[in-house]
Amino acid sequence: MAAAGGAAAQEKTGMYGLIGKMLAKPGKRDELIGALLAGTGSMPGCLSYVVAHDPTNADAIWITEVWDSQASHQASLKLPAVQQAIAKARPIIAGFGERFETEPVGGVGLPA
Amino acid sequence: MAAAGGAAAQEKTGMYGLIGKMLAKPGKRDELIGALLAGTGSMPGCLSYVVAHDPTNADAIWITEVWDSQASHQASLKLPAVQQAIAKARPIIAGFGERFETEPVGGVGLPA
Repeated sequence: MAAAGGAAAQEKTGMYGLIGKMLAKPGKRDELIGALLAGTGSMPGCLSYVVAHDPTNADAIWITEVWDSQASHQASLKLPAVQQAIAKARPIIAGFGERFETEPVGGVGLPA
Repeated sequence: MAAAGGAAAQEKTGMYGLIGKMLAKPGKRDELIGALLAGTGSMPGCLSYVVAHDPTNADAIWITEVWDSQASHQASLKLPAVQQAIAKARPIIAGFGERFETEPVGGVGLPA
């Protein structure tokens, strides 16, 4: 019953995480958060996608994501709802700050 | 039925988030993650607590947390299971990296 070993060697099979900061144009943070939350409600393989205020910068947002695989994250970028969110968000994004990729291994709030 | 308005003014009532990097002593990352996950399974007010490998550093861990309030996070540090985890983890922690506080506002994977 074991899977043949050859083909999967190059594929990342573990969970995939992102931690990143996004900067809204001045005064546009709430609007940007609205666009992000509207576009990300139903993404296959998305285990967690939390949008947060940066309390030290009124225009900055932290986004932390956990996916069942890097492939699911890649695929999400092609979803119509996500494409629409990107189109709506782009004009009010001023830039990006820190960005870290992670490999989640467990914890509270992930599906068992 | 509305609560009286005076007393809560100084209390933070929104969700509270933490993003932080922890560095294990060389070769001790898995052991450190085991201690963290064992101690954090049942913390009141904890909405998410995800432990992840840093793929760029074999000794580094990212921890992302979402709490229903900053008070719940503070209270968790006094829980016996958390105290035990801290005692077990302390000798194998080499240090800490980035640390960001956040104010989560919504997203996927949080209780409705």
